[in-house]
Amino acid sequence: MELALRRGFIWPSFEIYGGVGGFYDFGPLGTIMKNKIIQKWREFYVIGEGFFEIDSPTITPEEVLRASGHVNHFVDAMVECQKCGEAFKVADLVREQTGKDIEGTPEDEMEQFIKKHKVCCPDCGGELGKVFDFNAMFRTAIGPGSKRAGYLRPETAQGIFINFKRLQRYARGKLPFGVVQIGKGYRNEISPRQGIIRLREFTMAEAEVFFDPEDLHHPKFSEMAGEQLILWLAKDQEKGDKKLTEITTEQAVKRRLVCNELMAYYLGLTKRFLLELGIASEAIRFREQTPGQRAHYSSETWDVEVSTERFGWVEIAGLAYRTDYDLSHHAESSKEDLTIFSADKKRKILCHVVEPSYGIDRPFYCVLEHSYMSDGKRLRLKKWLAPITVGVFPLLNRDSMPEKALEVHKILRSKGFMAEYDDAGSIGRRYARADEIGTPYCVTVDHRTLKDDTATIRDRDTAAQVRVMLTELPKILHSLIHEVPFESVGELVRG
Amino acid sequence: MELALRRGFIWPSFEIYGGVGGFYDFGPLGTIMKNKIIQKWREFYVIGEGFFEIDSPTITPEEVLRASGHVNHFVDAMVECQKCGEAFKVADLVREQTGKDIEGTPEDEMEQFIKKHKVCCPDCGGELGKVFDFNAMFRTAIGPGSKRAGYLRPETAQGIFINFKRLQRYARGKLPFGVVQIGKGYRNEISPRQGIIRLREFTMAEAEVFFDPEDLHHPKFSEMAGEQLILWLAKDQEKGDKKLTEITTEQAVKRRLVCNELMAYYLGLTKRFLLELGIASEAIRFREQTPGQRAHYSSETWDVEVSTERFGWVEIAGLAYRTDYDLSHHAESSKEDLTIFSADKKRKILCHVVEPSYGIDRPFYCVLEHSYMSDGKRLRLKKWLAPITVGVFPLLNRDSMPEKALEVHKILRSKGFMAEYDDAGSIGRRYARADEIGTPYCVTVDHRTLKDDTATIRDRDTAAQVRVMLTELPKILHSLIHEVPFESVGELVRG
Repeated sequence: MELALRRGFIWPSFEIYGGVGGFYDFGPLGTIMKNKIIQKWREFYVIGEGFFEIDSPTITPEEVLRASGHVNHFVDAMVECQKCGEAFKVADLVREQTGKDIEGTPEDEMEQFIKKHKVCCPDCGGELGKVFDFNAMFRTAIGPGSKRAGYLRPETAQGIFINFKRLQRYARGKLPFGVVQIGKGYRNEISPRQGIIRLREFTMAEAEVFFDPEDLHHPKFSEMAGEQLILWLAKDQEKGDKKLTEITTEQAVKRRLVCNELMAYYLGLTKRFLLELGIASEAIRFREQTPGQRAHYSSETWDVEVSTERFGWVEIAGLAYRTDYDLSHHAESSKEDLTIFSADKKRKILCHVVEPSYGIDRPFYCVLEHSYMSDGKRLRLKKWLAPITVGVFPLLNRDSMPEKALEVHKILRSKGFMAEYDDAGSIGRRYARADEIGTPYCVTVDHRTLKDDTATIRDRDTAAQVRVMLTELPKILHSLIHEVPFESVGELVRG
Repeated sequence: MELALRRGFIWPSFEIYGGVGGFYDFGPLGTIMKNKIIQKWREFYVIGEGFFEIDSPTITPEEVLRASGHVNHFVDAMVECQKCGEAFKVADLVREQTGKDIEGTPEDEMEQFIKKHKVCCPDCGGELGKVFDFNAMFRTAIGPGSKRAGYLRPETAQGIFINFKRLQRYARGKLPFGVVQIGKGYRNEISPRQGIIRLREFTMAEAEVFFDPEDLHHPKFSEMAGEQLILWLAKDQEKGDKKLTEITTEQAVKRRLVCNELMAYYLGLTKRFLLELGIASEAIRFREQTPGQRAHYSSETWDVEVSTERFGWVEIAGLAYRTDYDLSHHAESSKEDLTIFSADKKRKILCHVVEPSYGIDRPFYCVLEHSYMSDGKRLRLKKWLAPITVGVFPLLNRDSMPEKALEVHKILRSKGFMAEYDDAGSIGRRYARADEIGTPYCVTVDHRTLKDDTATIRDRDTAAQVRVMLTELPKILHSLIHEVPFESVGELVRG
């Protein structure tokens, strides 16, 4: 985190005004990396799955969120300190002070738990009052006066459901079809105390997969059937059992541990996405939510969790079987027909939905933590994901090396490489600075460059160097980023 | 607009609940196109200019917007109907009913104007009441209770200014440097009545260029010096004179029509950006705001306007000389030092700012309108900007043509082309559907394909066809999108 702050990946928002909990800025390096994660997600879901992407407003009028159940159910149990008056989210406080997860248990049980375990105010040690519900949506008014209430959306999904009529027409009535949305989501946390893991404003990437509840097959399931998953089943959690179940997606469906092929397919796809970001497979588990933990719209939910040093297991995605909850509630509230007519089956279908819902900020953090090498000097980010792809340095600040290096820098940028020029301090310090932010390659212009138009490329992970023709540089960098072995691209030289 | 709605570019939000003015959704085609416009903007400002991109929250605590002047000055003059109680923005109502622009004039003058020109309620014809100020920011509360007030940001710029300390360190004290942000902005319009032109929630792309007020030169000004601009000067507007001044950026600075090289450079760059989107140069003018129209922070502002059939001249960007207004106010309010120490000049500098601020939704609309051909059948979008790059069709739905076409479709998508498969209706109808959404090329798999692995490519603009080898298809499509002449890529065939 110190590195992330110092080098401009992320920092707390509104710092010069003392900061506000639950808000983080992405700095210049962080923004590039975040955008790359989003782009990779699009590659998986829009290009790979062929889903449609839409973009709807973050402000949502009250009637939509009343129909979706969020006005009544999107609540956090909170508690106030009797002494200092500070407010807290019960589940967070209990987790911090006892290590237990009591999210979703009834209010009176929470109160008993607090008493029994002597949970108190973390600020002043005071006694805590009664537990009560707080709606976690940010509220606002649309237009002058307060005639029309609105909220900042707690999820992007509702923008998809309420457009179902237009979307099914666009999909020409074929099932299953998927629609995605990437954008801001909001949760007015009571007293967020976990940095970037508990944000009040965050970026989400959600997919809603609409299907016929009488046809639970995924057309590409065979491609995913052998993917191994590590499951932590609800029944084991309820017994207090830490036992994990390692199983293929195919077996998980056969043994009815996962509700259907569609759900299992997207569990597998989520694992593949995380591997692509550079998360190790042993650090990924799928935790089935217990009935008390599930959102009001879900009949089966899998939290995708990644192991971190700082925060333990962190939920970075949730896959919910939303059934027809949303479509049927919106149909009822709006009096619109939200079924689809299947030409093949010659009947109307009220679609069911499986939803893979990802946060973007949390995997961003996990990737940073997982890439940070124990030497404290290098960020071993996947090459495609590094915010700066190539550093360009003059060996010395004389003999027209800087001019030549700037020329190389300009050419690389014009070819679309995120190249950064650096001439400050010794060459060793510049390599170190580049290693620290995960830059996979550095090109150094030296005396020989001025004579024969060659330059060295240095590899972040091995510090090995090769010398190549400048004219070949863009092509070679392109190959290297696509995992061509370093040794094969030029003449090996000493560092 | 009918086409945009029907084919899934944009549609009014929350339609099944009766809609809410000032909100639009981007559908599947619109989202792709909007993202392409954003990506092009990044190419200009992040890659081309070397500016840093950051990403800060949309929710902003009150103290930030008090310091920036928005709590006091970001107001719209409004008026209510005495009869039906409906609220209106005075400037909009006056523009609709009289064609005059009275934005920024004092309240009492507005009232006199309304009386004199008999401006009345457009809904019921009733008489209008007194003119008063309405703060146009969406208000909310951060955390439980209403202890901490916050607003949805009216511009992304403040997220940059309050991070100036971190950003100048990242820029290593070099001036000028630029920082950009792309994201949602909000304006709680009183009664928006102009569709996508007057949104309550919109996407902005803003650049803040920090410079030494004693050094007004732009390092790359020579590359922009000859760019021709069409200016409508404030002094001519104030005289009621429609006279336009056509002049190069260089002459505009020399004759002091534009405040400095930095401003003139970005006026030129904005023109180049719009040309790249496919807006004709004669449809672009730069209107200097009169002192009454300028925002509270600006000492010179240029509205970049594009001519449209439906809405007349539409402001799609604003370039403001914000002076040191924001940095000095935040320094004062936060008690932080927001100067930069220049190593070259050995002194502290309080930077001035030139801000090119773009909306993304309005140019999106303008591009659609400008691309819509008078035959009502084609959208002549720039090839790179078309949401679908290539349609893939089987000539007939038999003899394994569909299988072959699906294979071609899959290969093209795996190579990153936004390809769409269509087998519904006659080949002529499929071409027409593709033309209608601006798809520049269609590939048709026919009988000959099955024998010799060739297929035809059809050109949207001329309906001409060439026959090419399937193996060559990705390379050829790539060349075509990059403006290689159609006739040169294959064997010409009859349509």
